[in-house]
Amino acid sequence: VTARAPSATPPTAPGTGGLELDGAGLRALVAAAIDRLAPFLDSLPDQRASGVHPVPAGAVPAPAPLPLTGSPVDVVLDEIVDRARIAFNTTSPGFMAYVPGGGLPYAAVADLIAGVLNRYVGVAAAAPALVRLETDVLRWFAELIGYPAEAGGVFTSGGSMANFGGVIAARDARPGALARGTVYVSAEAHHAVTKAARLAGFAPDRIRTIATDDHYRIDSGELERVLVADVRAGLEPCLVAGSAGTVNSGAVDDFDALADLAATHGAWLHVDGAYGGFFAMTRAGRAALGGMTRADSIALDPHKTLFLPYGTGALLARDFARLRQADAPHASYLPDKNATLPDFSDYGPELTRPFRGLRVWLPFRLLGVETFRDALDEKLELARWIGNELAMEPRLEIVAPPTLSILAFAVRAEGATAAERDALTRRLLDEVNARGRILLTGTVLRGRFVARIAIVSFRTHMDRVIEARDIILESLDRITG
Amino acid sequence: VTARAPSATPPTAPGTGGLELDGAGLRALVAAAIDRLAPFLDSLPDQRASGVHPVPAGAVPAPAPLPLTGSPVDVVLDEIVDRARIAFNTTSPGFMAYVPGGGLPYAAVADLIAGVLNRYVGVAAAAPALVRLETDVLRWFAELIGYPAEAGGVFTSGGSMANFGGVIAARDARPGALARGTVYVSAEAHHAVTKAARLAGFAPDRIRTIATDDHYRIDSGELERVLVADVRAGLEPCLVAGSAGTVNSGAVDDFDALADLAATHGAWLHVDGAYGGFFAMTRAGRAALGGMTRADSIALDPHKTLFLPYGTGALLARDFARLRQADAPHASYLPDKNATLPDFSDYGPELTRPFRGLRVWLPFRLLGVETFRDALDEKLELARWIGNELAMEPRLEIVAPPTLSILAFAVRAEGATAAERDALTRRLLDEVNARGRILLTGTVLRGRFVARIAIVSFRTHMDRVIEARDIILESLDRITG
Repeated sequence: VTARAPSATPPTAPGTGGLELDGAGLRALVAAAIDRLAPFLDSLPDQRASGVHPVPAGAVPAPAPLPLTGSPVDVVLDEIVDRARIAFNTTSPGFMAYVPGGGLPYAAVADLIAGVLNRYVGVAAAAPALVRLETDVLRWFAELIGYPAEAGGVFTSGGSMANFGGVIAARDARPGALARGTVYVSAEAHHAVTKAARLAGFAPDRIRTIATDDHYRIDSGELERVLVADVRAGLEPCLVAGSAGTVNSGAVDDFDALADLAATHGAWLHVDGAYGGFFAMTRAGRAALGGMTRADSIALDPHKTLFLPYGTGALLARDFARLRQADAPHASYLPDKNATLPDFSDYGPELTRPFRGLRVWLPFRLLGVETFRDALDEKLELARWIGNELAMEPRLEIVAPPTLSILAFAVRAEGATAAERDALTRRLLDEVNARGRILLTGTVLRGRFVARIAIVSFRTHMDRVIEARDIILESLDRITG
Repeated sequence: VTARAPSATPPTAPGTGGLELDGAGLRALVAAAIDRLAPFLDSLPDQRASGVHPVPAGAVPAPAPLPLTGSPVDVVLDEIVDRARIAFNTTSPGFMAYVPGGGLPYAAVADLIAGVLNRYVGVAAAAPALVRLETDVLRWFAELIGYPAEAGGVFTSGGSMANFGGVIAARDARPGALARGTVYVSAEAHHAVTKAARLAGFAPDRIRTIATDDHYRIDSGELERVLVADVRAGLEPCLVAGSAGTVNSGAVDDFDALADLAATHGAWLHVDGAYGGFFAMTRAGRAALGGMTRADSIALDPHKTLFLPYGTGALLARDFARLRQADAPHASYLPDKNATLPDFSDYGPELTRPFRGLRVWLPFRLLGVETFRDALDEKLELARWIGNELAMEPRLEIVAPPTLSILAFAVRAEGATAAERDALTRRLLDEVNARGRILLTGTVLRGRFVARIAIVSFRTHMDRVIEARDIILESLDRITG
């Protein structure tokens, strides 16, 4: 017989109870949170679109010391909401700056559920019915944008990591890519694409920036010239990266031209569709996105055009198998492979990562995909409408009309210098934003400062867009005075 | 005067209301979720530690068609909980497999709050008081593990991305790293480190696998020999990667030896502390982790040893400035820099990403850091206790005693072949796990199959560890019996 009695006094368990939260405790803590979040949601239409911005001096708390002991729930929750006020109001229906998404509360509830259940979806064997849930959502994405049945993908934390995955797939599809390979990126591309190429090891002098045409799309003639010159120089085109909606102007590249050139030169075609890709769910959007699905891979951002809270991107590949890492290891401490479900950790850089699929699945299942499609159609219509309205104003110039739901405009100032003209557009933006009902930001297009309107939030509807037009025109009156 | 009347009939807004959720709606949806999560939490002690595993044939749902229209809340929420059952029970107090964390419900509530507020923390100007919150947490991490004041870091999705960030920092600290640089990884290192090096562009033949000593630590004599040979061959040591607690056996490398060798050869020292790093918060853990803080960078996983739900890692650097990307761009569509707060997107691969800091900040503030320290001390004591108990059993051999809270053991089978001995240990594991009260997994150490006990979950206390000992010894009776 073996000894069963403990041979030493069991140590006391100092942490017992300290970190645990039972059902009643969870219910009480969540109720305290909702007591703050519900008024926050209900007051959104009246909150300043800019939030507290610019931030007053002294408004940002000083660095805080390590909290050795706990604090009361009310104090801690109030502090979060107070800190969140000192920020761009990315949740406002009037937030038309950068690329808004809004943050669907349904997805936030999905995160609560995912965190409490805490299942691991990086390998199929650990939670196969939830991995199936994620493969379902990714297959739905592929179907929604028009990719073929063998397409598939992985969830990422956002567009940057989705673009990184596309670059890695391109790099690893071509032996010697870092030695002789070249990358082609639009001058209007999001810097995430160039950054991804640098992270993947491409030297700066192998990353070509291709000039754009009058519509801020890659100049395909110029791309062809650079490709041919590189091949003549003994280099090997590895990756052509297009944009399905640039951040600056919403420009959509000519994917048929890019796909033809990529095919001719044996390069991978990746499309950054972080902002625009999901518009392919709509009839009008799909027409505007042309041959996007000829791409080998596409980066999508559910936290932009599926309106999710920040933290969910996706990389899709026309042929899912091509995302699989050639040297995907099988460590002895990992569970066995599943015959019909992928181990997502073999298809992207992450092993352990959050259960991101639920944030899409829950609102898709509760609301239906048609609700999302309708919302995207609405954004396209709203952008077209305000674009037409502003185009009728002779003191404004539409610098980039809305291909999708982003447009750019500037104050028309005949006879003014470039600096004077830019200053006027900046003044217009300041006037508009000071009202607090909408927030617009500017950018630079071909050296010219322009104001942007990005209509992406699920909370932005016609009433606020009419208000936006009125505020822009009234502000124009004031500055041209 | 300019026309103010709309020139076209405003389009109807088909999405209006469809995606929105007001305060009352959020309260109702969350209540429905809690009605499922509260019983889930309260039944955890009685749930099978393995979950429904192995998965019965037909238990995983078939691929589902695109949900065009919505479904009732109860149907959808029930489906999530049902699917989560078919999974390893990573939340059970008896889950001692892999590297458990458990999933603090406090952090899940933080995710709910973060999602509804939806603030953007990738650049300081967008939410400075929340970026301050994240810099506070990262500074607390540095303080807790004993890093100097100029240390800092970034949050990541998990250990893989934290290790990737360390590899990128090492690579970019040395010009020409991909041309002549070499990487040194333990034979016992987590494959995330090698994967990160491959993602960063290091060729497989530049990644050296260094043999380990009798304690499964990098053999520093062997490391020195390989370093010297590489330098003689004209290569440039770029990165030495150590482990603060390997997954297989919990081994902690000799960081003083590694730091000396790295310094001699001008290489960056990175430590994968995804499992073990936070034990430096405790007196015993810090002693076991020796010179860990001599590392240039350390990967930590709050979703392991701070018990968070999956989805939060962190990369710390001794000198935060060295994480900054040399070519961090400043795109014209981004807001201006803040003078005193970092733009985290310049220090890691992500631009838009979730507000991960809140998942740590909320439980730290509510419970106090001492509660976490006590829990980590408890895990060390529990592992030491069961290690001592099993060591007294002559039919078992402790293959790797607990340096931290992981230990490995095997059935001692005098005169048996290696295959027979491994089969006995596998049978022991099967017997133990069939009881459903604890779940252990195995791994291979130097060609030998061993059973592992990983005591990491915040829900695992002395009662379950006594039960684990009894089950192991009773199962041993049965298989040897």
